[in-house]
Amino acid sequence: MAISMSSASLPIFRTMLANLSHLLDKGLAHAQARKFDPQVLVTYRLAPDMLPLSRQIQIACDAAKNGVARISGVEAPKFEDNETTFDELRARIAKTLAWLETVPADKLDGTEDKDITFPVGRDATRTMKGEAYLKHWALPNFFFHVTTAYAILRHNGVELGKADYLAGAK
Amino acid sequence: MAISMSSASLPIFRTMLANLSHLLDKGLAHAQARKFDPQVLVTYRLAPDMLPLSRQIQIACDAAKNGVARISGVEAPKFEDNETTFDELRARIAKTLAWLETVPADKLDGTEDKDITFPVGRDATRTMKGEAYLKHWALPNFFFHVTTAYAILRHNGVELGKADYLAGAK
Repeated sequence: MAISMSSASLPIFRTMLANLSHLLDKGLAHAQARKFDPQVLVTYRLAPDMLPLSRQIQIACDAAKNGVARISGVEAPKFEDNETTFDELRARIAKTLAWLETVPADKLDGTEDKDITFPVGRDATRTMKGEAYLKHWALPNFFFHVTTAYAILRHNGVELGKADYLAGAK
Repeated sequence: MAISMSSASLPIFRTMLANLSHLLDKGLAHAQARKFDPQVLVTYRLAPDMLPLSRQIQIACDAAKNGVARISGVEAPKFEDNETTFDELRARIAKTLAWLETVPADKLDGTEDKDITFPVGRDATRTMKGEAYLKHWALPNFFFHVTTAYAILRHNGVELGKADYLAGAK
């Protein structure tokens, strides 16, 4: 079957969010096994002016959710960004996945040339065509935050490998 | 125009490889401005058993090159993985980009259901359909190494922001 706007978006977000949840599982298990406070990982940053693990997870979720919402025109729930524990972050991923399941594929299909306008920073918007927005904004942004979450955990000694990132718990 | 296997692959690899080269420009300029040996960045790892910056660049290039080669059936040149400086790493990206320019889009189109067999580790191969291979292997792997390169530089104080990652020097 020919690739489509839905097939080029939904399965990537779903798979990688599930894998991201798996990375958190391993992060929490590592903290418990080593008997240190898991919050050390939740609040860890790779640089003082980078975002901590908790924000990486929230933004990865929103990159998927808002990306799909903008392309499809289906309204997405707003989440409060109030997660502060591994359990809450896993729940954030789970509710993002649950919402993605409700978006009909055909709302995404045929949107290649649709104008998508989205906020950039606090005071500006940007407009891109649907396909360009998916390829050059939503997906790179999504992968950025998933990979940065991986890097934060890996940097702190969590035993992760490429298979965890690509295939999660499978 | 409808999204296609070529439009869902080549522009992403091209844009992000150009952005990756821009990240290296800023990394080298940072080392020069701060008067430390740029090789410190080239050999830096986020964890003792993670790959250094040089390998992140080489693998990002190969994820793009080998991904496109396997999907299109166009033979790719083999690169030696012998880059040890910023200049050599930027040249590696440039020659990967130059090769991508030679691949006709129509060799990629219509490959959604084509069987792609590729090495996994030293002793095994894996087979996936073309579209699944692009979405669940080549692209995630590519973004992983581009983002990890960003994280290495950012962790070491290079002034990078999301705009550098998403839009490079543009």
